[in-house]
Amino acid sequence: MFERAEFVDRIAGVQSRMAERGFDALLLTQDADIRYLTGFLTRFWESPTRVWFLVVPAQGLPIAVIPSIGAALMAGTVVEDIRTWSAPDYQDDGVSLLIDTLQEVAGRGKIGTPHGIESHLRMPLADWMRLNARLTLVSDEAIMRGARMIKTPAEVEAIRDACQIAGRAFDRVPEIARKGDALSDVFRRFQMLCLEEGADWVPYLAGGAGPDGYEDVISPATDVPLEQGDVLMLDTGVIRNGYFSDFDRNFSVGPPSADVARAYETLLKATQAGEAALKPGNTASDVFHAMDSVCTGGAGGQSAGRLGHGLGLQLTEGLSFIAQDHEVLKPGMVITLEPGVSVSGGAGLMVHEDDYVITQTGWERLSPKPPEHLIRIEA
Amino acid sequence: MFERAEFVDRIAGVQSRMAERGFDALLLTQDADIRYLTGFLTRFWESPTRVWFLVVPAQGLPIAVIPSIGAALMAGTVVEDIRTWSAPDYQDDGVSLLIDTLQEVAGRGKIGTPHGIESHLRMPLADWMRLNARLTLVSDEAIMRGARMIKTPAEVEAIRDACQIAGRAFDRVPEIARKGDALSDVFRRFQMLCLEEGADWVPYLAGGAGPDGYEDVISPATDVPLEQGDVLMLDTGVIRNGYFSDFDRNFSVGPPSADVARAYETLLKATQAGEAALKPGNTASDVFHAMDSVCTGGAGGQSAGRLGHGLGLQLTEGLSFIAQDHEVLKPGMVITLEPGVSVSGGAGLMVHEDDYVITQTGWERLSPKPPEHLIRIEA
Repeated sequence: MFERAEFVDRIAGVQSRMAERGFDALLLTQDADIRYLTGFLTRFWESPTRVWFLVVPAQGLPIAVIPSIGAALMAGTVVEDIRTWSAPDYQDDGVSLLIDTLQEVAGRGKIGTPHGIESHLRMPLADWMRLNARLTLVSDEAIMRGARMIKTPAEVEAIRDACQIAGRAFDRVPEIARKGDALSDVFRRFQMLCLEEGADWVPYLAGGAGPDGYEDVISPATDVPLEQGDVLMLDTGVIRNGYFSDFDRNFSVGPPSADVARAYETLLKATQAGEAALKPGNTASDVFHAMDSVCTGGAGGQSAGRLGHGLGLQLTEGLSFIAQDHEVLKPGMVITLEPGVSVSGGAGLMVHEDDYVITQTGWERLSPKPPEHLIRIEA
Repeated sequence: MFERAEFVDRIAGVQSRMAERGFDALLLTQDADIRYLTGFLTRFWESPTRVWFLVVPAQGLPIAVIPSIGAALMAGTVVEDIRTWSAPDYQDDGVSLLIDTLQEVAGRGKIGTPHGIESHLRMPLADWMRLNARLTLVSDEAIMRGARMIKTPAEVEAIRDACQIAGRAFDRVPEIARKGDALSDVFRRFQMLCLEEGADWVPYLAGGAGPDGYEDVISPATDVPLEQGDVLMLDTGVIRNGYFSDFDRNFSVGPPSADVARAYETLLKATQAGEAALKPGNTASDVFHAMDSVCTGGAGGQSAGRLGHGLGLQLTEGLSFIAQDHEVLKPGMVITLEPGVSVSGGAGLMVHEDDYVITQTGWERLSPKPPEHLIRIEA
């Protein structure tokens, strides 16, 4: 999927940001950051036992300090210097090896690690404290966040692939959802559709169903059956070649109520307002206000807290469409627009989402064009 | 699936450990810990943007300090005191609310948070530093790890359900894998089988294929087709009601080579040696040595680093079958035995895995009985 040159370029991009800010090394501990610079792709991150370290020097290729169980896979990436230990090791789970490597690379220089929003330290705090007793680690000043926010053409194509897969699965929902079906079964069958259409795996599916929309957008499925007049929402993040889609579709079991049809119209209008604001030079905040003026008349958001976000190696990453976010849009950013409206005076909620890449002049939609009316499923 | 009383008991169990060690509060930030005490189950953890805090007081129910997007779902759990903010908030992403809550609950008392192996701090380091500037947080002294290691009867049944689902999917592999099929397609179809058999989702699938076993056990699938004489391994963790299975099965494309058949025999013998050591009073180390004497003649492990581990809310959690782990086995522990052997003088690797609960007198297998010979798929 990705050529070696792709990773060499990404590494150079991060090192150029490091040079501007005087960093001698970065320490990365999370799946998405390590994968971004190396292509190291495994579902083994699901196991919390092993820790994985990537040390990015000021120049040259990154050094992997990893459990021996990952050596064969890492050897297939751009990384040449792979230092391993047999993990888990209760006495010293790679910490000494990491300290030695950081000192070799950075001496007494400036070492950064991600500190900001969306970054988590993926190692035990006890080991972090051992590391800090020997070395000083400071914030990476959002270098990784900034580098990852602008996608390369190959990344955009990977996200487009994932979006097209999810789109084909959404098109087939009327095959697998009917009145009387338990929502939990609809969720299972929808994930099967995503796989059949080419997803490598389906890390995310949420949704809901009810006569006035749904109560929230993060609940797992219950066994409650779909009923005539329900609106069903499925919001999925599928993975293809390590990149995510993240968008949803709404379906009506039989004809929708007038309230639901009106809410869906509002969601499409809000999406169009967002699209109109989606161009280089505008800020995330501009896009938020454009959408919010349609969703709430400018009252300012709802329980979800934002009206879309960045997308890529993670289901959500980078900017947020909130009033506070003044990030300037640039070509290559991949984002979702995700307006929400309350239905029937607050009895429920409806949400619509699509995925886009920012271009030189505006945007290109990566998810298929959304239908003008709610997709009908059999009652 | 789980009654309210289940969570009340789990909370009381943790609070009893807190009382023994003089804790006034615990701060939990990770999915598995929060779910263990509340039942808060969502796939939304896939998004790294929002942080989630649970404050466990010395007495009474835990307090949730969470983004408003999760309030409706949390309200359906045992938690009554739910404090929310509209996240993400770049100025203060719940940190002040968390500090106020911890001070209200613990005053100047002792506050713990998980520090040890398998625990990660799921909040940005910058926010962690703001928190530490106001409060002192120490290690939870492995309270959460210890509490979660002994499963309740309801947890054991949940894990058994997940294992039975995966077992039915493994039985059907000959339906979806044949000579000439790309491994990536086999992976997709196998995940579909898991869903069809009742998995809520499939967070983990790894494996490999080759004439002498596989090179490693964490790689994603390639598009290389299955060939006559290959041994195929699929290792899956499926989720049902929030609990994992974690075991694998090996398949032979046509008749296996003598080396592969012998390796599989050794794996079953190592498993039986592990089973013989699997009883209350023995240690994890005892079980490791029993298996390792069969796998390597006592040479001590291989690249995987361990020969099995605990299982439950996470794919891997709790003890490890390594020489260093002196954890004493107790009834209610759920574990996997996972011996590995090299094939054809190190040309490849084969691994076998099954899941067990420790009983008063020994063990009960939660995964189906493994076949005596490699499962044959069509060549």
